Amino acid sequence: MNLRVFIATSLDGYIADKNEEIDWLHAIPNPYGDDMGYSDFMQEIDALVMGRNTFETVLSIGIDWPYEKPVYVLSNSLTEIPAELEGKVELVGGPLKEVLAELKAKGHYDLYIDGGKTIQSFLKEDLIDDLIITTIPVLLGGGISLFGELPMPLQFACFDTQIYLEKLVQCRYKRER
Amino acid sequence: MNLRVFIATSLDGYIADKNEEIDWLHAIPNPYGDDMGYSDFMQEIDALVMGRNTFETVLSIGIDWPYEKPVYVLSNSLTEIPAELEGKVELVGGPLKEVLAELKAKGHYDLYIDGGKTIQSFLKEDLIDDLIITTIPVLLGGGISLFGELPMPLQFACFDTQIYLEKLVQCRYKRER
Repeated sequence: MNLRVFIATSLDGYIADKNEEIDWLHAIPNPYGDDMGYSDFMQEIDALVMGRNTFETVLSIGIDWPYEKPVYVLSNSLTEIPAELEGKVELVGGPLKEVLAELKAKGHYDLYIDGGKTIQSFLKEDLIDDLIITTIPVLLGGGISLFGELPMPLQFACFDTQIYLEKLVQCRYKRER
Repeated sequence: MNLRVFIATSLDGYIADKNEEIDWLHAIPNPYGDDMGYSDFMQEIDALVMGRNTFETVLSIGIDWPYEKPVYVLSNSLTEIPAELEGKVELVGGPLKEVLAELKAKGHYDLYIDGGKTIQSFLKEDLIDDLIITTIPVLLGGGISLFGELPMPLQFACFDTQIYLEKLVQCRYKRER
């Protein structure tokens, strides 16, 4: 399987600011709506795995459900999903390796792993294969970090970079095992 | 004046690991000794400003003094410098803006600001004009962070990137005021 991350962080590594806000993500003018590789990336994956926080954030935005691909929500506390998302969203839980075996059995090989805590959980078990990180060039000075503690260092290699909107930089990293 | 940072961090933003070690900085093979723009950068600056920690780290390496340009060590505790560094190193202290006025009066306009705490102090007063950050693509999972708390967010723009040794990525950011 191929477990992938596509996420934006501040220059100091935060995915949300001190007030848990993410408006700074969109502070740089984007007049032509450049998606910075997002739709191409979405074409390459089979399914998404996200945590409860990210799922609830997506729901709270109040837009139509934005994902065409199946979404698996990792949660030990949620017991049901909104009726209108039936067939689109499924709850999963338990050890990550068992979750992955379940998704593989369903024919999902390329997974988009999303949400800070979820990404950290997968990294702790060295299950992430590539990271596509778009750096919003702002120092927030505090907030919720993308990365967390790890039992051991994990080596990656940056193999591609691209500047967007003359200010943001996206780097693609592959895990080196 | 132009206050500049040239530094390497891990992918998770650390300048030293959990044991305060920096051997991971040199873990990626560099057979031809690529200096990743360091000597070009050193040609562009008039003087260095570093903290006591960085100064003592440089001394502890036990090599010949590596800097051709004048070095100013920010410290409120050091009272003297080793005799052999006289004329090369000078102690400075007090409010940063006064230190800068002093250096400007000496004809130093382009400064290399070095050392984690020192960089954080200058950022807190919004005194940094550009950042050249080389990302070593390893997740350390803990250590000493390059960036710290800030009284307010600071906007930069990434205007150049370069991949070195097929793995590291260097991004150049300019402060947008």
